[in-house]
Amino acid sequence: METLSTSKAHGGTLGVYRHASSATDTDMTFSVFVPPQAEEGGKLPVLFYLSGLTCTHANVTDKGEYRRACAEHGIIFVAPDTSPRGEGVADDPEGAYDFGLGAGFYVNATVSPFAAHYRMWDYIAEELPALVAAHFPIDPARMGITGHSMGGHGALTLGLTYPDRFRSLSAFAPIVAPGQVPWGHKALGGYLGEDRTGWRSHDAVALIEDGHRPAGDILVDQGDADSFLAEQLRPQLLCEAADRAGVDLTLRMQPGYDHSYNFISTFMADHIRWHAERL
Amino acid sequence: METLSTSKAHGGTLGVYRHASSATDTDMTFSVFVPPQAEEGGKLPVLFYLSGLTCTHANVTDKGEYRRACAEHGIIFVAPDTSPRGEGVADDPEGAYDFGLGAGFYVNATVSPFAAHYRMWDYIAEELPALVAAHFPIDPARMGITGHSMGGHGALTLGLTYPDRFRSLSAFAPIVAPGQVPWGHKALGGYLGEDRTGWRSHDAVALIEDGHRPAGDILVDQGDADSFLAEQLRPQLLCEAADRAGVDLTLRMQPGYDHSYNFISTFMADHIRWHAERL
Repeated sequence: METLSTSKAHGGTLGVYRHASSATDTDMTFSVFVPPQAEEGGKLPVLFYLSGLTCTHANVTDKGEYRRACAEHGIIFVAPDTSPRGEGVADDPEGAYDFGLGAGFYVNATVSPFAAHYRMWDYIAEELPALVAAHFPIDPARMGITGHSMGGHGALTLGLTYPDRFRSLSAFAPIVAPGQVPWGHKALGGYLGEDRTGWRSHDAVALIEDGHRPAGDILVDQGDADSFLAEQLRPQLLCEAADRAGVDLTLRMQPGYDHSYNFISTFMADHIRWHAERL
Repeated sequence: METLSTSKAHGGTLGVYRHASSATDTDMTFSVFVPPQAEEGGKLPVLFYLSGLTCTHANVTDKGEYRRACAEHGIIFVAPDTSPRGEGVADDPEGAYDFGLGAGFYVNATVSPFAAHYRMWDYIAEELPALVAAHFPIDPARMGITGHSMGGHGALTLGLTYPDRFRSLSAFAPIVAPGQVPWGHKALGGYLGEDRTGWRSHDAVALIEDGHRPAGDILVDQGDADSFLAEQLRPQLLCEAADRAGVDLTLRMQPGYDHSYNFISTFMADHIRWHAERL
């Protein structure tokens, strides 16, 4: 693992790192904020934040306003990239923003040419937690996960699939049912093929319908002025599935907020406190 | 004045605006955060934040972490650009980062070809305060100013020159004595010419030596791991001038912090509270 930069922030250390990923067979870049509590020794809880379409690790790292709250609660914050990148990594044939580079959708692709590198599921579920636990003072029994939009989808599907691994779960404006919305049709079709039975493992609503349960309760924030709300996000589908299954879900509709980091940064401190209480 | 975007953030509204500036004879873009207290009617205090070399309005807007504190204290926050831009605006002949575009140094240039548009002093001192007071619920009797690096220089020189206008004054890692450091030699020489007597009006240390006084006390934060500290910033020169003149200056050397937004965002809430107490 190579250190690209470190800088003191909010009493802790913000670093950007690169490593050769065995999951994606590419180099991958991510950021880690280690709060000041690390100086006391001992292991700290960690929150993984999965970003949305078009993002790299840098967007939330610069604009997420998570560090003050992480420093207050003693949480390590890890922000990975959203897809493999580099020479030989296939992209959307037309360079669209919602598929290919910056749009890995947190699945292991099975369709050529994406299957060669697009293995973000294994990367986030297995490789990255092991890597950061080896290099930072992380307690692997206290890992939480959150994310925004496509990253909210990733957080929900990973959290529902691995409740023993991800002990706390929240999301900002997540894609809750990719099997029922255009972004998901394109991404899951393109990465997993048109047989929709395989899609259910990467659809939070379907996972709940199929009996998967999170480690605890789920917090979702959603702006009601989000331009993607009605067509792509549809949080009501998650509420209905959670209701039917007895999953404890809090959906907070936030009046006037859009899909941007202005929304995310406003509620980030709430989510960090919420994870800290559960980790 | 054209609205380029607005978005709800931290209970208030973050907007980006463009207007045809008479000071610079170019279009100028800036951001304004209006906190939720504006909904109660009445006029609010305003803090102008002047950015450093290479920045536009966007850097602090995205990365400054000022909105939560502004929403807490009821402060309007205005972030202008650092130079004129656009067709016909002269740049450094070699495209250097420390002169020309992104490096206006908050002076009215007198040297051709920069004199045509580089009139950032008038822009910040006169035109922008009048423009935002006409469009936002600002109390013109409660204006404060701060900034980073080159923008800290701008804040100090404007605050020392117009204490009746800028009622509170702080800076992050400012250039305190451009007449004594390489960045300043290049910029003041390039914009104002080689007759150094004219430079003293744009040098905080010289302004204090020449009898100028701020409206009140001054707060400066400076990271001790800032790579520009010894050669370009030299805050001790400001301390010595303030001591000799009886100016109430608090310089906080912040251990381990560098020159980046990781430093600025860590101490931004302190500065906003400090201005709020004085406005």
